[in-house]
Amino acid sequence: MKVLRLGHACYLLTSKEGKRYLIDPFLSLNPGCPEEYTKPAFLRTIDAVFITHGHFDHTQGLEEVENANPDVLIVAQYDFGMILLQKGYSNVHLLNYGGSIYLDDVKVTMVQAMHTSSYGETEGTPIYGGQPAGYIFNFHGDRTLYHSGDTTMMADMKIIQDFYKPSVAILSASGQFVMGPEEAAYVVKHLLDVEYVIPNHQFPNSHTTPRPEVLEGMVQQFPVIETMMNKDEKLLHLLEDDDKTEVIILNYGEEKEFPILQEASV
Amino acid sequence: MKVLRLGHACYLLTSKEGKRYLIDPFLSLNPGCPEEYTKPAFLRTIDAVFITHGHFDHTQGLEEVENANPDVLIVAQYDFGMILLQKGYSNVHLLNYGGSIYLDDVKVTMVQAMHTSSYGETEGTPIYGGQPAGYIFNFHGDRTLYHSGDTTMMADMKIIQDFYKPSVAILSASGQFVMGPEEAAYVVKHLLDVEYVIPNHQFPNSHTTPRPEVLEGMVQQFPVIETMMNKDEKLLHLLEDDDKTEVIILNYGEEKEFPILQEASV
Amino acid sequence: MKVLRLGHACYLLTSKEGKRYLIDPFLSLNPGCPEEYTKPAFLRTIDAVFITHGHFDHTQGLEEVENANPDVLIVAQYDFGMILLQKGYSNVHLLNYGGSIYLDDVKVTMVQAMHTSSYGETEGTPIYGGQPAGYIFNFHGDRTLYHSGDTTMMADMKIIQDFYKPSVAILSASGQFVMGPEEAAYVVKHLLDVEYVIPNHQFPNSHTTPRPEVLEGMVQQFPVIETMMNKDEKLLHLLEDDDKTEVIILNYGEEKEFPILQEASV
Repeated sequence: MKVLRLGHACYLLTSKEGKRYLIDPFLSLNPGCPEEYTKPAFLRTIDAVFITHGHFDHTQGLEEVENANPDVLIVAQYDFGMILLQKGYSNVHLLNYGGSIYLDDVKVTMVQAMHTSSYGETEGTPIYGGQPAGYIFNFHGDRTLYHSGDTTMMADMKIIQDFYKPSVAILSASGQFVMGPEEAAYVVKHLLDVEYVIPNHQFPNSHTTPRPEVLEGMVQQFPVIETMMNKDEKLLHLLEDDDKTEVIILNYGEEKEFPILQEASV
Repeated sequence: MKVLRLGHACYLLTSKEGKRYLIDPFLSLNPGCPEEYTKPAFLRTIDAVFITHGHFDHTQGLEEVENANPDVLIVAQYDFGMILLQKGYSNVHLLNYGGSIYLDDVKVTMVQAMHTSSYGETEGTPIYGGQPAGYIFNFHGDRTLYHSGDTTMMADMKIIQDFYKPSVAILSASGQFVMGPEEAAYVVKHLLDVEYVIPNHQFPNSHTTPRPEVLEGMVQQFPVIETMMNKDEKLLHLLEDDDKTEVIILNYGEEKEFPILQEASV
Repeated sequence: MKVLRLGHACYLLTSKEGKRYLIDPFLSLNPGCPEEYTKPAFLRTIDAVFITHGHFDHTQGLEEVENANPDVLIVAQYDFGMILLQKGYSNVHLLNYGGSIYLDDVKVTMVQAMHTSSYGETEGTPIYGGQPAGYIFNFHGDRTLYHSGDTTMMADMKIIQDFYKPSVAILSASGQFVMGPEEAAYVVKHLLDVEYVIPNHQFPNSHTTPRPEVLEGMVQQFPVIETMMNKDEKLLHLLEDDDKTEVIILNYGEEKEFPILQEASV
């Protein structure tokens, strides 16, 4: 199983069978997403898109994926998915917390998150988008990965760990709209029991962005973005003495393959 | 206290004083609801209706109850109840999580659930309906029953058990939009401590439906319904060795009386 | 650090540096708010306003604060704050669960609550306002205070206590739309570990209100208010033998200064 960082909450997961699953498409306007990953040539190769919630910075690229690949499978929560169906998206699979979709190489379960979910909120009155979600990707004969979605600490994470047994977590840690690095370190120490944690929801700074002009435009429009930079390192620092969990910091556009767990390699 | 299964999340509770409490009215379009229970002759006998959330499959029959019985008491969450009042419903009692209504023979408390709540979502943009709820029915001198509403596993269930002490739970277990049987079995083993659990949110199949033509129409319009069939038995199987909790599977239209607990028979 | 009770969920916190932080402005229509605190002369002295959720009884006075003090800092959840920005409010700081704002004398973190959040719900279809919040006020060199927002019991409170370590809690306890005194006593005994608890969300009765004519008008329009009277004393009674936590009941318009904790007096 491979994880490719595309900036903010957008990650591409590739199964050992080669299927490509894109989480929270934030593409042409995402200063952490290298330009090649915003192009139809790449977007046509996506097998399914998973949406954690309706906010702009998690769904902005959905139309771009759909334009490149009109039949792409979109997995979304019931209420937000109904909006997508009403807007004309054709292949929407509706779930809600605790429900699963069974694909050839992976079972994906929608789990709760502690955040909010609305749609169109940068253009007018926010439209209800359900409640925010995370996802558990249980890859067949491979690892189980937990994408927390946008969230803060919650007791339910202990149950999610106990029941679904993820060994890798993509975990919110940027502060401002999700928990900060200190809260995320608490989660890793007290609520989760994963081998690897990948910090989530950070924005690149002017040195690390693959697209400086996009970053400049976004910071001008949304200055709050600056509060969500340089947080990954803080989580790394807070967990440097932690024996249980390794913090994995990927560059924007960098991909890491996680070795199959002994006990999972059936 | 008696529990009558009317399909999906719709149950009729009858107190030993003979009062009738209907949860989540899904009536004329509910393939699990025998026809007699959709008729005014029955609906006129309802003392109160409890709504867990606004989705179509939990509120479709509310207008049918109101038509038969315009003054019927409707218990709903603040935000959804405001919509009902604005639509002209006359006798709406508003609650929110942790709040209780005190009736002659039962105290009913609204508790949290992990799902979503919107209204009108099959006809247009989903309207915010608050957050999803469950209910605790504390029958005087009788058992306490927990209807989980649509939900997945949550740590708060342990607190709900510890504080309200239900001995019977109607628990979501159909998968897709709520937790599946495996998650529900985890809840019964690790979070609740009830004597009886009744699986919730299942759809009947073509053999078990009391109204085949309604089932056929609904499956045509919402094929996803087929994923929510035959799940009760799975929960039964998963808990067959559980000493603490007995799984009670009711047929559609079947009623079961639960004996009064020794310690509750004041 | 001083806490001034202004009725219902509206409290004024004053730091030892003299900054004034107002939570949930419910002013001219709040029967618990003495008239002087609804006047521009007072409202002009507010440094920041914190909103837990969008309901009428938590935001009614926001326009009154803004009229007196157009540049006042308003801290609100992302979705509700976007509505405020769209309505022309100028100085809105957006947060979501787990995010913090860093002011000169206090760090304030938004945390989850179990309730609902909508806006305009007394005038028409409720508009989605995000999810309800509480706040942690970590005063520099002074105590940490937790305003629970409107909520019922939740397992996450144990994590909030463990991580943020508040020693004072303003805690919902009025029943009906939040947990009642029994649930609040459970929270104090089992989930929190605070030195002082201040009951929240109560309405004054005809003897304790500083503005009888406002109370009369509100009760006429919203009779449900009567169910939320005289609840503080119940929590006091339930916790009278509790060695850990003291219940502090303030009169409407009464202010209490909390002594600095030994270990916090850096």
